[in-house]
Order: sequence, then structure tokens, then C-alpha cells
Amino acid sequence: MRDVQSERDSRRIPIDLVGIKDLSYPIVVLDREQKEQHTVANVSMAVSLPEHYRGTHMSRFIEVLEEFQGKVTLSQMEHITEHLRQTLRADRAEITFQFPYFIRRHAPVTKIPSYSRYDVIFWAQKDSSFDLITTVIVPVQTLCPCSREISEFGAHNQRARIEVAARMKNFVWIEELVEIAERCGSAPLHSLLKREDEKYVTEQAYQNAKFVEDVLRDTALELEAESRISWYRVRVVSSESIHNHDAFAELERHVSG
Amino acid sequence: MRDVQSERDSRRIPIDLVGIKDLSYPIVVLDREQKEQHTVANVSMAVSLPEHYRGTHMSRFIEVLEEFQGKVTLSQMEHITEHLRQTLRADRAEITFQFPYFIRRHAPVTKIPSYSRYDVIFWAQKDSSFDLITTVIVPVQTLCPCSREISEFGAHNQRARIEVAARMKNFVWIEELVEIAERCGSAPLHSLLKREDEKYVTEQAYQNAKFVEDVLRDTALELEAESRISWYRVRVVSSESIHNHDAFAELERHVSG
Amino acid sequence: MRDVQSERDSRRIPIDLVGIKDLSYPIVVLDREQKEQHTVANVSMAVSLPEHYRGTHMSRFIEVLEEFQGKVTLSQMEHITEHLRQTLRADRAEITFQFPYFIRRHAPVTKIPSYSRYDVIFWAQKDSSFDLITTVIVPVQTLCPCSREISEFGAHNQRARIEVAARMKNFVWIEELVEIAERCGSAPLHSLLKREDEKYVTEQAYQNAKFVEDVLRDTALELEAESRISWYRVRVVSSESIHNHDAFAELERHVSG
Amino acid sequence: MRDVQSERDSRRIPIDLVGIKDLSYPIVVLDREQKEQHTVANVSMAVSLPEHYRGTHMSRFIEVLEEFQGKVTLSQMEHITEHLRQTLRADRAEITFQFPYFIRRHAPVTKIPSYSRYDVIFWAQKDSSFDLITTVIVPVQTLCPCSREISEFGAHNQRARIEVAARMKNFVWIEELVEIAERCGSAPLHSLLKREDEKYVTEQAYQNAKFVEDVLRDTALELEAESRISWYRVRVVSSESIHNHDAFAELERHVSG
Repeated sequence: MRDVQSERDSRRIPIDLVGIKDLSYPIVVLDREQKEQHTVANVSMAVSLPEHYRGTHMSRFIEVLEEFQGKVTLSQMEHITEHLRQTLRADRAEITFQFPYFIRRHAPVTKIPSYSRYDVIFWAQKDSSFDLITTVIVPVQTLCPCSREISEFGAHNQRARIEVAARMKNFVWIEELVEIAERCGSAPLHSLLKREDEKYVTEQAYQNAKFVEDVLRDTALELEAESRISWYRVRVVSSESIHNHDAFAELERHVSG
Repeated sequence: MRDVQSERDSRRIPIDLVGIKDLSYPIVVLDREQKEQHTVANVSMAVSLPEHYRGTHMSRFIEVLEEFQGKVTLSQMEHITEHLRQTLRADRAEITFQFPYFIRRHAPVTKIPSYSRYDVIFWAQKDSSFDLITTVIVPVQTLCPCSREISEFGAHNQRARIEVAARMKNFVWIEELVEIAERCGSAPLHSLLKREDEKYVTEQAYQNAKFVEDVLRDTALELEAESRISWYRVRVVSSESIHNHDAFAELERHVSG
Repeated sequence: MRDVQSERDSRRIPIDLVGIKDLSYPIVVLDREQKEQHTVANVSMAVSLPEHYRGTHMSRFIEVLEEFQGKVTLSQMEHITEHLRQTLRADRAEITFQFPYFIRRHAPVTKIPSYSRYDVIFWAQKDSSFDLITTVIVPVQTLCPCSREISEFGAHNQRARIEVAARMKNFVWIEELVEIAERCGSAPLHSLLKREDEKYVTEQAYQNAKFVEDVLRDTALELEAESRISWYRVRVVSSESIHNHDAFAELERHVSG
Repeated sequence: MRDVQSERDSRRIPIDLVGIKDLSYPIVVLDREQKEQHTVANVSMAVSLPEHYRGTHMSRFIEVLEEFQGKVTLSQMEHITEHLRQTLRADRAEITFQFPYFIRRHAPVTKIPSYSRYDVIFWAQKDSSFDLITTVIVPVQTLCPCSREISEFGAHNQRARIEVAARMKNFVWIEELVEIAERCGSAPLHSLLKREDEKYVTEQAYQNAKFVEDVLRDTALELEAESRISWYRVRVVSSESIHNHDAFAELERHVSG
């Protein structure tokens, strides 16, 4: 059977990345409390393609994924990406796993537990060197300092999300990145709050008024102080309750020292 | 050229609806202030198919749309739907246009104008009789009465949306349905608010605390009092700022009298 | 602490449904091969509210969910919905779980296994009686009979999805509903296909050309023949490869006998 | 009234970008045939913020947008972005307009006209210099050369999209970028095709089989030959009809000469 993909290409155009995306696949990731967590990933896998090949072999991407039986841990990401690179005989391979991740949270006063959902992205690239970025997307509440200052009573507040992307020098748990972000909003979110808890988080947010700029800078300060992180990018997006559009702020920094 | 669609089908299964959906098309609708408004619709068009035909003729749906040159008004909906029914020789035809609609709004204190976006749905069905439902989706702010009552200061608030669907006895402007909904949230949203305006809407929402249940009932009360409406369905969805999930409430009523 | 929700409401408007939606929660469902499958559900829970109560108690919805520790099986749906109804002291309770579900599939020729993703919805309602609808959403390929008939070579084909909703008299596995739908497209989809497999499914689809109307009727015929099903609704949506819009067809039937 | 945003910030963290996003606003753009086209944009506007300011002034973004009365042309993008930069007294300003754009297309044989929808993005940045990238997203059909080669009859084909981003040395119409992309798929899409047309495009695609890699390289070749373009990035995403995931390929190049 003819292998059309392997035929010689004469257009002299190397391809930066070719592969598959939006593949939904069950995976198992590490969980600090429970040891492991079953979840569902949106998977993207791609390689570079030299100018003389007409096409890549798409089925091998899934074969690589199958070999690892869905075990996706930060420490294995280099191994998986290198294996993809070798299987496809490519100079460069790139893999992204994006998945929901659940952490057990306790309401602030009643201590009743429930699950909070976060979104996590593992992105890795392997050529002569290896690069790995871990991103957590954490929903929080923001309460506007200007609205509080100028109003007789009340202050507009809303759901916002903090996206923290980090390159690590040493292992950091997903849970630790989530905790950093949750400390930096006006208040964290919970799935289950009884009345005493609702009073607590309402007052917590009011006393802790923050612009998206404040949330961004406070998150950055925490990440600057974290010696296991070598680079970070933070993005805060706030679904303003007085507008039908969002406010956002972002920055990217190499950690000094 | 063989007409496969018109061939006889022996499976003895009539089809409720067959047609096209998610067609994006430019349309022109009536605007109370500007006379007309150019917008972009998501279009769905379908007909019933008797058991003895194998298929419908999909290209004719677009031909019907083209004949009306994108002029989509409530008063023309019966004509368009009937024309579709006849063109496809069907017992029943159904058309949906969903589109963004912009209204010029003035900030409450500074009176500076800006556009507010709403979403509108025209749904029509024609068989032996004609049925037409107009839906507007209006973003508002809701502020929680429980949170305000139990907290020393502040109250959680958030963006919400009110969906009003109505069958009319007499013509009602999109703008009128939008105004009904905007009156029934804790405060309306604006694209542009200066500090004086922000103070105003913050205090307005605080003094006007409402659960989704309250917004729903207040909207229903307004619709009950509107003699041009014969049936309505209201749905309120609030993106709770203390949770990562939404609260919602809905009801459907024939207007008495 | 004042219970604002329980206060008397004088607007005389009973509410059809009030509750929470778009809550993301980890659940465990039954799996025919593996006994159980961990997945992530989008959850909606709601109750009716009599006219004299101002509001429902939203936190109790999550408490009910927590009590069942995420174990969501068809046979337990009545118990969960009834428990919600009683906890909220409502006349009627309604719950929806929507979740991705993975089934191990083998390529048609090489027999190499990989996961296929389906989407499943459990919807239940409890008042004086109990109602339960199970929906599976199954991606397939459709190949156009008209295009094949009139063209010298080739035929346009594309990804489509078949949505099968069913009320059951006796237990039917998710896997069985998926198999019915997969048999009724022009060809099933697979995550992993080697060249021999790709040849197989290409020819299978070509020999098995079907309009959305054909897929709909063939699925309906299979469901008519299934004695464990008392009612079904089928919807087929095909992302036409020659258009930038979709074709669709749908029907709903009580099973005779 | 206190101006909280203008207060001094002592955290010593400059912010890369702060502003608004997901604002929906009506705009008017240039149309090669019709002179102008009314459409609806998703707008993002942001500026850099020095370390000593606590916050930016979000309402001024909308004021800038209002001043231009929604007239958004490529030649005015520098003026708008510079005006935003000056109004916010920022070192850098960035604006994105993303909008649907319709072009009248004629069916290949019957020549019947209908609208085709494309998506367009204008992105501009102004600091000491000015940068502008125009992106068009063009839906096409791709037909797999491997599937055609190895199968007795037929070949899998599907809807795909080509994203062309370009920096220009001299003005290029949106329509020209769209035409380049449409020439490079296996066949273009149309909203309205009669049987003769359907035969034509089915055979056109079959005779013009292309991997995503082929579409990518052919588009790149066309862009290389275009002297008005100084840089481009192309991305092709194909919704494979035999899989439930997509194939993609991408590359980015400065045009030599």
C-alpha cells in the first residue's frame, strides 16, 4: 500500500508544526491528597516536518498516547514528548494536555467540604532542549476598590479568573499554584456555602477590594518569592458586573535570582 | 441528472423537521430609532417531510433566504415561513433567526452614550396556522438580598441575563421587551460609565437587591400587565460571584385576559 | 441570622423551576466493561417553588449531590431526584448530568484499540411520578448519496453527530445506544486508524451513502425494534463539507406496542 | 470624587497590558465591492501601565472607540491605536477587532449568488513604532490524498479552515487574502449549490486531493509570491471526517526580498 505521506516534497517549505488537536482522551494525573485523579483531557500533539517530506503520520500520535496508558505527570512529560519526537523522527515535538482538575475545599466557617474545579494545562516542547510550562486557571471573586470608595454603600464585584503559567526549576504541585492564585483575588469561590459562610466571603471580598491590576501584581509578588519557579506569566480576566464586557491585565517575567 | 432526494422512501417514517442550521448570514432588521439595523444572523430553516420522500432539497432554503434579500421583520416572518413551506411543498415550515442587536444607551448621570448589545431570536412556524415567538436576551446586574442582609458591609453581585420569550397579539418593539427586562434586574449594564455613573449604579444595585426568583417574578408581573402579549416564558441566569456555577429560575405563562 | 429566602412572597407567582446550572463536578458512572468510569459532569439541579416562598435554598442542591458522593447511575436517578425534592420540600425536582463517556474501540482491520468519546445526558424529573430520559451523542461519518450519484468520482462526506434520547421500560446500557447510532451512520469514527483501516472506512462510507434523513430513519427503525424503549427522539446534525453550515433532521416517537 | 486608579503604587511591578476584552460593538469596515460593510466586532483594547500607577481608566477605552464612530479601516488602525495610547498616556497601546465579513460568491456552474462568511481580525500595536497584522479565517474543503490513493472508490473529505495572518508593506484587500486561501484548499465552500454545482465541487475536490500539509505549503507559496506582504503565518485546521479530532499544520515566515 502506497505511503503517500513519505513521498518527496519539492516545494522547499519546512513546516513548523503538524499534528492533531482537540482529541478528547481520558487521562490520570497526580493528586497531592488522593495520589491520583482521573480526568478528561483535550490533547494536542505535533511535530516539525522537514521540507522534503510531504506529510507526517497522524496515527502514530495516538499510538504514542496509548503507550503511556493515559498516565500524564509533570515528571513524565519530557519522556512522552521525546518519545513522540523519536517515533515521528522529528527535530521538534510539542504536546499539550488541558484538563479540569478538582480539589476538595472546605467552606470558611462551617467547614463543609465540596469540590472546586480548576483548569490545568501541561505544555511541553522537546528539540535539542526541553521546555515545560504548567498553567492553572483559577476562578476567584474581585471587588472594585473604586466602586467601594465612591459609593455610599456596596461595591460592584464579580467572578474573575486568574491564569498562572509557570516554568519550574523544581517540582511545584498544581495545588500550590492554585493556592497562590486563590490568595490573590478579593475572595476565593466555593461550590457550597451556608449562610454563615456567605456572610464571611461577602465581608472578606469587601475588605479586600482589588482591581484586576491589583490581583495581577499580588499574584506576581507571590510568584517572585517562589524559588522553584524560573519564569511566569499571569493573566487576570474579570467579568465586570456593571458592564457586559471583561476587564483584563497581564504580565510575563523571568524570576530574578 | 438523477434527483436522489425525490426518490420514493419505503421505510414509512415521516420526519418532523429537516433542514439547515448554523448558517451565518447578513440581515437587516427594524430599529425603533434608526429605522433599520444591519446585523449578522445565525439562521435555521426546516420543513416536515412526508414518509414517502427520501430527502428534502437543501439548496432551496438558501434560495428562499436570498429572495427576501435579508430583510427580516416581525411582520414579514409569516410571509417568509409560508414561502418556505410552499417552495418545499411541506406541511410545516420552521425558521429561526438569532442575532445581536444594539441599542444606544446613556450613562445614568453623565448621560454619555454608548452601545449596549442584546441578543434577539425570531422563531416562526407555519402549518395550517402560524406561530411566532420573539425572544430577547438582556444582560443585567443582580445583587443578592441574603448576602446584603446578613453581612456587615457589601453584598455579592454579578452579571446575569434575563431571557424574555413572548407571543404577541399586537406588535411590540424589541426595544420595549429589552426595557422591561432592564427594569427588573438590580441594575442595568452599560458599556461606558464614568465615576459618577459607577457610583450611581453601585448604589442602585445595592438598594435594589434581588434573587433570581425576584427578577423572574418582577419581569413576569410586567409582562402580565402588557395587553399586547398573549404568552411569555422568562428565564433568569445569574453568574454568582461567590460560586463557579450559575443560579437560574424560569417560568412560562399564558396571559390571563 | 435572618432567612431571607423563607420569607413570604406576595406576588402570587409560582416558579416552574429554580436552581443551579453549569456546576462542574466529578462523578462515577457504570461502565459495561470496566464496571465503573470516572468522568466530569456538567450538573443542573432545580425544583419548583410555590408562590408564597421568596426563594429556594441553593446550598442544599450541592449538599444532596455530596451525599451521593458522585455515584450517578441510571437506577439511582429516581432516588437522587426524590431526595432533592424532599430536601427542598418541593412538588417537583429536576436533575441533569451531562458528561463525556469513553468506550474502547478497535480499528476495523488492524484491530488496534483506542478510546472513542461520546457525550451522555441523564435527565430526570420527579413529582407524583418519575420521568427519566437518557441521551447519547455519537459522532459518525455521513457520505452524500446525491453527490456520489451525480459525480464521476468521489462524494462529499463529513463528520456528523447522532443524538439519541430514549425513555426506557427496561435497562439499556449507554454502550447499546451508542452501538445503535454507530451502525446507522455511513461509517463510525475512530481515534486511531492505520492505512489498512483508513482504506476500509473510506470504502465502507462510500458504499453506505446516507443523507441525514437516511441516518435518522435507520436509527428510528432500530429503536422501533427495541422492546426495552418506550419513547425516543433522534436528531442528526451533519457538518456538510461543501457548505459552511450544517444539515439536520429530527423526529420523536412513542414506540408502538 | 477620589481617583483611586491614579494613586501611587509601591509594588514596583509594571504591567504589560491592561484593558478591556470581549466588548461587542457595531462597526463599519471597507468592502471592495460595496464600499462599506456593517458588521459586529469583538473588541479588545489595552495599554501598558507603568509601575507607579495603581490602575488604568477603563471608561476611556470606550470613549476612544466612540470617537471613531465605529469606522474601522486598515488605514485608520494606526491613528486609532495612537489615539488610545495618548488618551491613556501609555507607552504602548494594543487593539484587536475580530468580526464576521461576508463576500458575495457565485456557484461554480449555475452562477447563482449567495453570501459566504469569513472571519477577520485586525490587530494593531503602537509604541515607538507601529505594528499591524491582518488575519482572515477561510473555510474550505480538504480531501485526503492517502485515502484516495489506497481506496477502491471515494476518499474522505471534510470542512477545514485556513487562517492567514499577514503584515503588509502595501494595502491588500481582505478579499484578496480570502481568494488566496480559497484557491489553496481542495475546493472552496458555498452557501448555495444546485445539483450541477455539487457535481462540480465534488469532482474538483477529488481531483485536488490535499493533506493539511499541502494546503499549508500551497498557501505559503502564494504568499511568498505576493510582494505587498512582508510576513505571514498560516494555520490549517481540518475536521477529519474519519476521526473525532482535528488535524492541523502551521508555519510562520518573513518574506524574502
